Amino acid sequence: MDLLEQKFARLGVENAPGQEVRQQVNGLELRGEKLTGVPVDFSHGDVDAFEPIPGTLDLFVEGVHSGGRQAYTEYRGRGDIREDVAQKLSRFTGQAIDADEQLIITPGTQAALFLAMAAAVGRGDKVAILEPDYFANRKMVYFLDGELVPVSLDYLGTTVGVGLDLKELEESFKAGVKVFLFSNPNNPTGAIYSADEIRGIAELANKYGVTVIADELYSRQVFDGREYIHLCSQGMDPDKLVTVIGPSKTESLSGYRLGVAFGSARLIDRMEKLQAIVSLRAPGYSQAVLKAWFNEPEGWLKERIAAHQQIRDDLLNKLRAAGLTARTTEAGSYLFVKLPKLTVSLLDFVKILRIHADVVVTPGTEFGPQFTDCFRINFSQDHKAAVAAIERLITLVERYRI
Amino acid sequence: MDLLEQKFARLGVENAPGQEVRQQVNGLELRGEKLTGVPVDFSHGDVDAFEPIPGTLDLFVEGVHSGGRQAYTEYRGRGDIREDVAQKLSRFTGQAIDADEQLIITPGTQAALFLAMAAAVGRGDKVAILEPDYFANRKMVYFLDGELVPVSLDYLGTTVGVGLDLKELEESFKAGVKVFLFSNPNNPTGAIYSADEIRGIAELANKYGVTVIADELYSRQVFDGREYIHLCSQGMDPDKLVTVIGPSKTESLSGYRLGVAFGSARLIDRMEKLQAIVSLRAPGYSQAVLKAWFNEPEGWLKERIAAHQQIRDDLLNKLRAAGLTARTTEAGSYLFVKLPKLTVSLLDFVKILRIHADVVVTPGTEFGPQFTDCFRINFSQDHKAAVAAIERLITLVERYRI
Repeated sequence: MDLLEQKFARLGVENAPGQEVRQQVNGLELRGEKLTGVPVDFSHGDVDAFEPIPGTLDLFVEGVHSGGRQAYTEYRGRGDIREDVAQKLSRFTGQAIDADEQLIITPGTQAALFLAMAAAVGRGDKVAILEPDYFANRKMVYFLDGELVPVSLDYLGTTVGVGLDLKELEESFKAGVKVFLFSNPNNPTGAIYSADEIRGIAELANKYGVTVIADELYSRQVFDGREYIHLCSQGMDPDKLVTVIGPSKTESLSGYRLGVAFGSARLIDRMEKLQAIVSLRAPGYSQAVLKAWFNEPEGWLKERIAAHQQIRDDLLNKLRAAGLTARTTEAGSYLFVKLPKLTVSLLDFVKILRIHADVVVTPGTEFGPQFTDCFRINFSQDHKAAVAAIERLITLVERYRI
Repeated sequence: MDLLEQKFARLGVENAPGQEVRQQVNGLELRGEKLTGVPVDFSHGDVDAFEPIPGTLDLFVEGVHSGGRQAYTEYRGRGDIREDVAQKLSRFTGQAIDADEQLIITPGTQAALFLAMAAAVGRGDKVAILEPDYFANRKMVYFLDGELVPVSLDYLGTTVGVGLDLKELEESFKAGVKVFLFSNPNNPTGAIYSADEIRGIAELANKYGVTVIADELYSRQVFDGREYIHLCSQGMDPDKLVTVIGPSKTESLSGYRLGVAFGSARLIDRMEKLQAIVSLRAPGYSQAVLKAWFNEPEGWLKERIAAHQQIRDDLLNKLRAAGLTARTTEAGSYLFVKLPKLTVSLLDFVKILRIHADVVVTPGTEFGPQFTDCFRINFSQDHKAAVAAIERLITLVERYRI
């Protein structure tokens, strides 16, 4: 196996969210009758249940009608749209963002993450990645020939914050970590970093000269009135921080492929150079849709958050009553659920769930190799269908419980 | 300068098409009065002059209304859309393409190129790149830590074909080239490879086990009834060939960010794995627009080709009358024009042209470092405005001619 073959062997997508239709499903041990009900795909949010921000399609159509200047923007995005987004994100984070030098629009938040990583991670560089954290983080390190330095989270802990051990993080920085990438709220647990944790990250990054990429994709959907602190507000060296955010989740605009990165002018500059050879630019007409972001109708966001919080509570009640463990989501729409011991492997159980109960979940192993008894769900779904799907899931857990 | 800094220093975009607004323009020697007229940006086609395929916006809107299944497709693209595209491209190329295994939809043809290159080029691998050829080709090799092996084209030659020296290509293959990337029709010259050249490439690739990435972005817009031969029809090892194409140019769909790659199942599989961490997928709603591709109204393509051929002829007549040299475009909408000796550098002349005549062209050095006396134009523009802009350009050439 040559180097390139080895690299791609580590980038498997068979169990990645949304790829389930490509799975091999031979030889599964299907117990009992098939459980019927409305199929639910918990691997991502359902934009039919929670629709895009009202008026977004109209903005897209206007973009098409405005023609060439919207189709062909600068690689980093159209100037006046960057200006509008920079102002809105400055208000959201409390930090001034220069639209011309410190912000880039990308085809989805995934692209923002990839470009930021590629701008910061050189061959052989050590990269600290939390476990569990977003499934693509480790794969980007592999692709870029970086060296993965896993840092553990006490992800089922009930302490304040996400459960980051700042001492362990400092040890990794001391050992030569160049780049630290993390999501806040944490994906897959939905935990928010505490003030102490965020302040600690900023201090350690400054002390050891570490570049930090903060994925704040879900930072607008905060439950129970909790506090959320943006890392960029904590005095980090502005040359070494990039924050990534986008309207794909809470705002259900994933189909338009829009993401944003802001921060270090030096890194944003590299990201634009790279975007020029990776995909040229975020879809031109889609960029027009960003006008609706952070500009939603009065009460729209509040209502959306309340609806998600109710689904979260109903699912957690069901899961806990059945003896399954999960931390209460503090922001975003993920639950990371721990299974009891089963007679089948996690990957087989996930396949059985799909084939035998029309329920799709993402195996915990996508978030770290050790999570062989966990799965993630995105509960941004039709409320009733989600509850019924969790009931089917629990029935199957009972059938396979040791 | 660390390795990563060196790498990004080679990925400059200041002079790349579409990025001109970010240029520094101090200290230019502006001669004579400013030349006024309708501004023309020859760095890319004008989708206001040549509009997208009729009905494409309606398809997009339908896509949005069909909801989640269109927003969240497999990473390689929605199954039934891949099936439709595979059938159309099979007819176009005369080669059977398996929609499930041999085709991927990407965010623009640029993304298809990048993913194909990243799937095939390992660190230190030798990559043969023609000069001149598409400006991003060399940059992708730099980013992937490949070793660039330039192969020259007799690009101003009047012989049949693009002017590829098959002996020079064979020497590069003998010397260990792993991957060969080229555009046909050639960007920037608009020359089409002859039957002998294409057959020769296929034979040499098979003989030396070289992987070939064929960029056929402009292969539908062929002038003067010329013959166009797809490399994939010439018996190349199917495991080692990826062809890239898309509806951004002739079809003016660039604003939707859609591209396609087809060929080697092994490489397409790698491309999907990589797409999962680079941008997830081509914009979901945009994918619906592919239904209109190769399905244009009767006569639409023929008319578009005829209109471009007329603009080509008018511009060439003007340029040649003024003593500038350019090969006659055989396909696509580029002209690669050789300048007489000027009193200012190429990069300064290009800036002066923009500031002093509202005409944007792309400097030849984007296509190879040696092309310091050439520029490229995309003549997919409003006919009258393009002719007037070329007249202004010629006036400025006269002002700066030695």
